[in-house]
Amino acid sequence: MDKGEKTKRKVIDAAVSLFNVKGYSGTSIRSIADRAGVNVALISYYFGNKQGLLEELMVEFFEGYNKILEEAYQDLKSVSPKTCLFSIVEKILKYQQHNHHLARFVHREVTLDSTLVRELMMTYFMKEKHFMKAIIEAGIDKEEFRNLSCDFISIQIRALLTMPYSQPQYIREVYHLYPHESYFVQQYMKHIKKWLQEFLYTENDGKIKKQLNIALY
Amino acid sequence: MDKGEKTKRKVIDAAVSLFNVKGYSGTSIRSIADRAGVNVALISYYFGNKQGLLEELMVEFFEGYNKILEEAYQDLKSVSPKTCLFSIVEKILKYQQHNHHLARFVHREVTLDSTLVRELMMTYFMKEKHFMKAIIEAGIDKEEFRNLSCDFISIQIRALLTMPYSQPQYIREVYHLYPHESYFVQQYMKHIKKWLQEFLYTENDGKIKKQLNIALY
Repeated sequence: MDKGEKTKRKVIDAAVSLFNVKGYSGTSIRSIADRAGVNVALISYYFGNKQGLLEELMVEFFEGYNKILEEAYQDLKSVSPKTCLFSIVEKILKYQQHNHHLARFVHREVTLDSTLVRELMMTYFMKEKHFMKAIIEAGIDKEEFRNLSCDFISIQIRALLTMPYSQPQYIREVYHLYPHESYFVQQYMKHIKKWLQEFLYTENDGKIKKQLNIALY
Repeated sequence: MDKGEKTKRKVIDAAVSLFNVKGYSGTSIRSIADRAGVNVALISYYFGNKQGLLEELMVEFFEGYNKILEEAYQDLKSVSPKTCLFSIVEKILKYQQHNHHLARFVHREVTLDSTLVRELMMTYFMKEKHFMKAIIEAGIDKEEFRNLSCDFISIQIRALLTMPYSQPQYIREVYHLYPHESYFVQQYMKHIKKWLQEFLYTENDGKIKKQLNIALY
């Protein structure tokens, strides 16, 4: 990382942690500069203004998030939809674990009704839906998944994946679980896997048929 | 509703819709007064300051939310844990549907790391956990539910119930579904019911056994 990159990283880290306590509107460029130990002018140089910094944070997060979905989608040619979907679950959880401060801020910010959020929806969120739909439809086609509504499956997967990272404080203070630890990710992943197996995968029907066959022959 | 109640309601509605566009810190008491068509002094009279208004909004929402959980918990003496849990799902979704502007704001606000949020967690969220745990444990005891982790079940139910109301814009713009319409609530409820049946309820095992019996006799 060169010096410029290091400075940018320091500014981003300071901004994210201030935004998480005081909110975006409640945080000034000056307080970000103080926390990062850099000059206000340097922030302007790298990000323009506070809005520019916000855009950079959001885009950085969703680029990484969507890359995981896109790669899983590319893999559909060679691996099963089940493997594909589970690789998304694992990678998205780990991605958010590694970027848990940023994730928390971004998940809150996208609930605001702003022009920036609308633009992000039209690019990243529509793409996310497209990839998820393709994977779920492939699963239904190959009879690996039950014929459930693609939309609701996508929405529910997104809800389960983002919840611990949009509300880490809730998980921590109420349940004494720590979403930024790999132990949490492993346990939570096990649960989502079980959910997918029981709810989405057709294995259950197979299990019944198999047991019926054992009983019959 | 007397005149004072009407004024309070107008202020609350104006505040919620401004907070959802500009955020809490980005909204002034003056702009709330303008939107509500009331005097700034009247807001001070009813709520003290902006922080007082915020507290009132949060407490109002969680009082209603927890009342649903508490009533379901009281019903445990007379109805099955399954019925209890499903009544929570139905009532919480409808509660949020009816208060969708407020729900959206509150769900965002609790992701901030503030003293108020910590206090709300310690009262309402701990109580919510207590009720949910009691209902899930009763279900496991009576063998209506599988022996899964109470904590993860609670977290996942909360994630599924709050998602459409913390991110209504996402659901609307990406999926063209409308969480404030009763049609959405019905469809979504059907999905969560299916999820509970397949994932949490022990019926599945019963189904296998039943089919085995049919095959055997």
